[in-house]
Amino acid sequence: MSAIDAVEYEPAEAGGGVWRPPAGQGLPLDSGATLAGLEVAYSTYGRLNADRSNAVLVCHALTGDQHAAGTHPVSGKPGWWSKMIGPGLPLDPAKYFIVCANVVGGCMGSTGPASIDPATGKPYGLAFPVITIADMVRAQAMLVKALGIDTLFAVVGGSMGGMQVLQWAADYPERVFAAVCIASAARHSAQNIAFHEVGRQAVMADPEWRGGAYAEAGVRPEKGLAVARMAAHITYLSEPALQRKFGRELQRDGLSWGFDADFQVESYLRHQGATFVDRFDANSYLYITRAMDYFELAQKHGGVLAEAFRRARNVRFCVLSFTSDWLYPTSESRHVVQALNAAGCRAGFVEIKSDKGHDAFLLDEPVMSAAVAGFLAAAATARGLGA
Amino acid sequence: MSAIDAVEYEPAEAGGGVWRPPAGQGLPLDSGATLAGLEVAYSTYGRLNADRSNAVLVCHALTGDQHAAGTHPVSGKPGWWSKMIGPGLPLDPAKYFIVCANVVGGCMGSTGPASIDPATGKPYGLAFPVITIADMVRAQAMLVKALGIDTLFAVVGGSMGGMQVLQWAADYPERVFAAVCIASAARHSAQNIAFHEVGRQAVMADPEWRGGAYAEAGVRPEKGLAVARMAAHITYLSEPALQRKFGRELQRDGLSWGFDADFQVESYLRHQGATFVDRFDANSYLYITRAMDYFELAQKHGGVLAEAFRRARNVRFCVLSFTSDWLYPTSESRHVVQALNAAGCRAGFVEIKSDKGHDAFLLDEPVMSAAVAGFLAAAATARGLGA
Repeated sequence: MSAIDAVEYEPAEAGGGVWRPPAGQGLPLDSGATLAGLEVAYSTYGRLNADRSNAVLVCHALTGDQHAAGTHPVSGKPGWWSKMIGPGLPLDPAKYFIVCANVVGGCMGSTGPASIDPATGKPYGLAFPVITIADMVRAQAMLVKALGIDTLFAVVGGSMGGMQVLQWAADYPERVFAAVCIASAARHSAQNIAFHEVGRQAVMADPEWRGGAYAEAGVRPEKGLAVARMAAHITYLSEPALQRKFGRELQRDGLSWGFDADFQVESYLRHQGATFVDRFDANSYLYITRAMDYFELAQKHGGVLAEAFRRARNVRFCVLSFTSDWLYPTSESRHVVQALNAAGCRAGFVEIKSDKGHDAFLLDEPVMSAAVAGFLAAAATARGLGA
Repeated sequence: MSAIDAVEYEPAEAGGGVWRPPAGQGLPLDSGATLAGLEVAYSTYGRLNADRSNAVLVCHALTGDQHAAGTHPVSGKPGWWSKMIGPGLPLDPAKYFIVCANVVGGCMGSTGPASIDPATGKPYGLAFPVITIADMVRAQAMLVKALGIDTLFAVVGGSMGGMQVLQWAADYPERVFAAVCIASAARHSAQNIAFHEVGRQAVMADPEWRGGAYAEAGVRPEKGLAVARMAAHITYLSEPALQRKFGRELQRDGLSWGFDADFQVESYLRHQGATFVDRFDANSYLYITRAMDYFELAQKHGGVLAEAFRRARNVRFCVLSFTSDWLYPTSESRHVVQALNAAGCRAGFVEIKSDKGHDAFLLDEPVMSAAVAGFLAAAATARGLGA
């Protein structure tokens, strides 16, 4: 393991596009509805090998998208997992065929509430059906099959991406060789739901939200979405990280004695809110947070999480958590590992010491990189993939 | 100690009113401004004894007010510290003359941004000067003097009330015999500021806020204030308490597959937001959160907290924290106690095991009650107050 400093990697062999199922084939949803006109936007890095055994599906988090590596076409910044995907990094395109798809409900090309509803010719808005993590995974499974991949070498993701990893193992265990679940949980807690509800209420309190039909009016609930992002952003960082990064440092010499951003942490949060609204759709935020809140993997299995993994005994699992992650704390990962053990699955578990909070999974965390690289190398050997 | 179950106490000897300084006397503020036309609304419970030595000043938190005991005139609910003030409780009106004043900047009768600006004849709104915890305490000190009390037997408070307690000890040590600081801190952390900034941005994002001049327009930024309250309320509870109280329990049988309040925790938060706006002024929320963010007791003392307490060596201190309080964690109380020790002050410190989070100081916490009662009893003996 080295080359952690390779921040930006412009993939030589990158691909992707928008996949559509054959005409007439919709996406069946947990709600009972069927989503017609499905589109799944995806990126790929590396090449699928001859026996189609080296495919890795990377699953993104709440506000992520398919641009996991390379330069993001909207923000111009490195992809969200540029610390993990690249030459010499744990997910090396020279070795793996890496696929990352925008989730259903998202706003970077996959069908979501901003898409045109074929029934009306107008953007869905709130007419978009409520979707679940399992729905997102079902769409990914269709895409992966269409790409000619029977079995994924690995499914990997952090946060909501980790939820998708667990859902893959539960729903398609025969199509997953290895699974890496980072900083995640098998269910949304009361506190998780509470923070999401604050964000949704902030969006819906903005009069420009207009009952979800803002696109037709040519407006956007930017203020509400920015407040939602600010609240959420605090939960992504640990208290010590905030203190170390900002403490009580001021923006200028002295206090303003007003309501300007006096403290650097205020300015930072405002910036997070302001830049987020440029790249994210407010209704997508509602739908994806809802999908996360609805997530409780044990529910369809009599409330016993181990039962969800009963068919996944051949899947190799790697579960990682961070000590300072209070959004999806180690106790949630441990709950997953205990269920995996109870189901007789192979599961490695590492709690990584970090003060960076939940966002650690997106950052330069050498122990995370080493753990994922080591786990995948061992799995690759077992899978018969060349070094 | 007993009688913890005495929830409602209608004080037989209750008093209070609105105090105004002599004509022409304003409140000098840390900002350099002077607040004219000061009014301080206060409640009292019990009777001042002959030698005026049994007065206890109770300081309220961000959204509290002077109605600490008895029935609240607006909400109709018991006062916010009805678990602590009453016959047989730690603050017994049979023994102490208890005074609680609405802070300057508040909205329950003391001068605040909703008051009429004498300069314009209109509500202050954002023309109200930014105030500090020290300003609040300065107004209290004027009130206490006007009530004929030279030295308070005790100053007691939790959360922002605890900040006022520490400020009293720093600014008026000769006028305080004992000080009880619960679930508080000597400074606002980056995370504390961050959560407050989210709340302020939620209020200010509401178009009905109208740059703070909503009163003149006959409207109120209710949606924004409700979102602010919802976000803040999460920080008042611990994750385990939320999980125990609500978990993933639903409001109805089955999910709504929409954005109604499916989960009980959502409904609870919405209720907290909705009821808060009936009793609190949005601009007061901005000003009081600002005062808390500006709070850093060491600042005027070269950044050395112990120096703030150097003159308080004759004050007896009792500092309490709760294990599950992540808003003002034990580490902040320990920081205070270390400074008190360094300054040569008498300081007792108890970290109370509780899973109720920050709000524990408002709840039935027998160890807190016993600690405060025991501390005050010992201090009363030292002060020569009859049992």
